[in-house]
Amino acid sequence: MPAAPYAAHRKQIATILMSLGMNQDFADQTAEVLAWADLHGIDSHGLSCLAVYYDRWKKGRVNMDAKPWVVQESPVSTLFNGDGGLGHPVSIRAMRVAIEKAQKTGMAISSVRNSVHFGACGFYAKMAADQGFLGIVTTTTSNKQVAPTRGKQAQFGTDPIAFCAPCLEKQPFLLDMATTTAASGKIRNKHHEGLKLPQGWATTKDGEPSDDPLVAAEKGGFLTSLGGTEEGSSYKGYGLAAMVNILSACLSGSTLITSPMHMKQPFGQDIGHFFMVIDPGLFRDPVEFRTDVSSLCNTLRETTPIDPKRPVLVAGDPEWKAAEQRLADGIPVGEGLLAKVRKIAEENNVPWLLG
Amino acid sequence: MPAAPYAAHRKQIATILMSLGMNQDFADQTAEVLAWADLHGIDSHGLSCLAVYYDRWKKGRVNMDAKPWVVQESPVSTLFNGDGGLGHPVSIRAMRVAIEKAQKTGMAISSVRNSVHFGACGFYAKMAADQGFLGIVTTTTSNKQVAPTRGKQAQFGTDPIAFCAPCLEKQPFLLDMATTTAASGKIRNKHHEGLKLPQGWATTKDGEPSDDPLVAAEKGGFLTSLGGTEEGSSYKGYGLAAMVNILSACLSGSTLITSPMHMKQPFGQDIGHFFMVIDPGLFRDPVEFRTDVSSLCNTLRETTPIDPKRPVLVAGDPEWKAAEQRLADGIPVGEGLLAKVRKIAEENNVPWLLG
Repeated sequence: MPAAPYAAHRKQIATILMSLGMNQDFADQTAEVLAWADLHGIDSHGLSCLAVYYDRWKKGRVNMDAKPWVVQESPVSTLFNGDGGLGHPVSIRAMRVAIEKAQKTGMAISSVRNSVHFGACGFYAKMAADQGFLGIVTTTTSNKQVAPTRGKQAQFGTDPIAFCAPCLEKQPFLLDMATTTAASGKIRNKHHEGLKLPQGWATTKDGEPSDDPLVAAEKGGFLTSLGGTEEGSSYKGYGLAAMVNILSACLSGSTLITSPMHMKQPFGQDIGHFFMVIDPGLFRDPVEFRTDVSSLCNTLRETTPIDPKRPVLVAGDPEWKAAEQRLADGIPVGEGLLAKVRKIAEENNVPWLLG
Repeated sequence: MPAAPYAAHRKQIATILMSLGMNQDFADQTAEVLAWADLHGIDSHGLSCLAVYYDRWKKGRVNMDAKPWVVQESPVSTLFNGDGGLGHPVSIRAMRVAIEKAQKTGMAISSVRNSVHFGACGFYAKMAADQGFLGIVTTTTSNKQVAPTRGKQAQFGTDPIAFCAPCLEKQPFLLDMATTTAASGKIRNKHHEGLKLPQGWATTKDGEPSDDPLVAAEKGGFLTSLGGTEEGSSYKGYGLAAMVNILSACLSGSTLITSPMHMKQPFGQDIGHFFMVIDPGLFRDPVEFRTDVSSLCNTLRETTPIDPKRPVLVAGDPEWKAAEQRLADGIPVGEGLLAKVRKIAEENNVPWLLG
C-alpha cells in the first residue's frame, strides 16, 4: 500500500481544504485532526473523511468560510454556534476554552451547535488529558443506521463517546468508542475480505439477525447497538446512544437525529458536540491521581492473557503503537481512496504531495 | 409470592438497620434507597442487599455508626469521606450538595471515598433530574468477577453507570446499567430456571465461552464486559468499566479494585462513588431542553417494533411500570429471601412487618 510521510499527508489535507475556500488557520487545524486519526490507525476518521466532506461541500451542506461564534457563556460553560462549517476548528476552540475555564474553576463544558462532522472524538478528549485533566466528548451524527432494541426502524447513528484520563506516562488512557457493536467501516472490511459478519453485528430490515455484510449498507438493514442482541443487553448500547444524543443535541439545541428536520436545516447539517473537562485537583493531589490511573492501567496490562501472544490491552494502546510505526514508516492509504483524493486535488488545482 | 405494601417493606428495612446501631435518620434514608429499588422492580438492589450488608456488618466491615465528613470542597466540588458506613446516606447528601452547588454555578461534582455499597445508582441520578438537572453517577464495587477482554483473570466488578435527564413528563430518561453483559442476578435466575446461558454472558476460568450458569459463581469463571466477546466489541464494555473506576476510585482516592489492598483496608470497604450534576440552563432555556428530551424519548417509543406485542422502550420505562404496579399490589419477595430477612429480624428482636 502506498505510504506518505505524516507531514506530507497532513499538508495534502490542508492544501485541499484551502482550495475549497477554507482559511489557512482552519485548514491547518482540520488537517491536524484528520491526520492525527490516520497516524493513530483510525483510518475511518482521517483522509477518508475528506472525500465525504468534499461531496457534502459540493451539495452546499458545508460552509467552508464558517466563522463560529460564542452564543452564551458562564464561568463553567460556553455555547458555540459552528456556523455550518466543518467541526474541527470550532471543536479545538471549544475544548481549549473548556480547558481554560477548568483551569480557573475546576470543571467546564463547551457545547457546540450547527456544526458538521468533527473527526475522531478521541483527539479532543486527549487535549484535556494533555493538560492533566479528564476529558469527555460526545457528538451527534448525520447517518441514521441503528434501530433501537426491539425496533425495525433506524433512529440513531454510531453516537460515539470518548473519555481520556492522564497517566504518569506520556500516553493517557483514551477510550473512543461508537455505541454500536461494530462501526460501518469494519462491516465494509468484512465485505471486502469476502467474509460473513459475526453474530450480533447487523440485522435485516425486519430486525432479524444477519451475517450478510451488505445487509445494512445496501439492503435496508441496521447496525446494532453495543450488546448486539436484546439477550446480549443491546438496550445498554442503545441507552448510551440516547445519552450521547441528550448530551450533544439536547444541551446544544442542535436538531435531534429523530426530528423530521434532521439533515434538512437550510443552514447546514446542524450536528451537535459536547466537551467536558474535569480537573482531578478538585479532589486530590494531581500526581496521586495520575499515579492511580497508571497503576490501574498497568495492572490491567499485566492480566493473565488467554493467549500469551495476545496480551491484555488498555484503551488507547493500539493507537499509540500505530502512531509510532506510522511516524517511522509513513501513513498507508489504500489505492481506491488515494485515487479519489487525487481526483479532488486535480479538480481544484492542488499540487499532489502523496507520491 | 408474598407481597407487602411499600410502606411496610420500607419500614422493615429501616427497623432492622436501626437494630444494628444505625441512627433513625440514616436508617430511613437507607431504607428509602433500598425500597425504591424494590418498588421499581430492581430486586437485585433492594431488600436482597440487606442480607448481604448484615453479613458484612457481622464481619466488622460496615460502620453502622458512620459520621461522614467533608474532606475538601470548592464552589463546584465536594469530596466526602463516608467513614466506612453504608453508602446510601452519604450518597444522598453528596447528591444534594452537588445539586445545591449546581443551582449556583451550573454544574458540580461530589466524590465519595471510604464508603460501602450504596444501592442502585439510578436513585441518585434521578435526584438531579427531579430538580431539572442532568445526573451522572458511577461507583466502584466490592466483587472482582469480570476478566478484561483477552484476559483470564478477574480485574473488575459490574462497575455501573447511571445517567438521568428530565423530560416534560413526570418520569425522566433514566439509564442505569452495569458495564457487564449480564448482572450476576440474571445469571443466577437462569440457573434457578434450569436454563443454559446465552452466548457471551460468561466464560470459563480459561476464558473460553461457556453456557453453564454456575461457571462464574462456582467454577472460577468470569462475567463478560458488555459486548460479550472480543468480536462483539467487549473491549468497549471493558473500557467503560475502566472509565467508571477512574471516575469513582481515582478521583476520590478510594482503593483501586486492582490494588492488593482492595477490600483489605483496616477501616472498611473503601468503595468510591462519583456524582455529577449539570444544569441544562447553562446552554438553553430549560423547558426547551426538556421538550427535546421528551421528543427524543417519544419518537423512540414510536419506532416500528419487530414484534407489535413488544414495543420499543426507553431507559426507565420498565421501572416506572413496575413501580405503578407494586405501589398498588405490594412488593413481592421470594420465600428464600423472606426467610433470610425474617431470621435477621428475629436475631435482633425487630418486630416482623412483612406478613
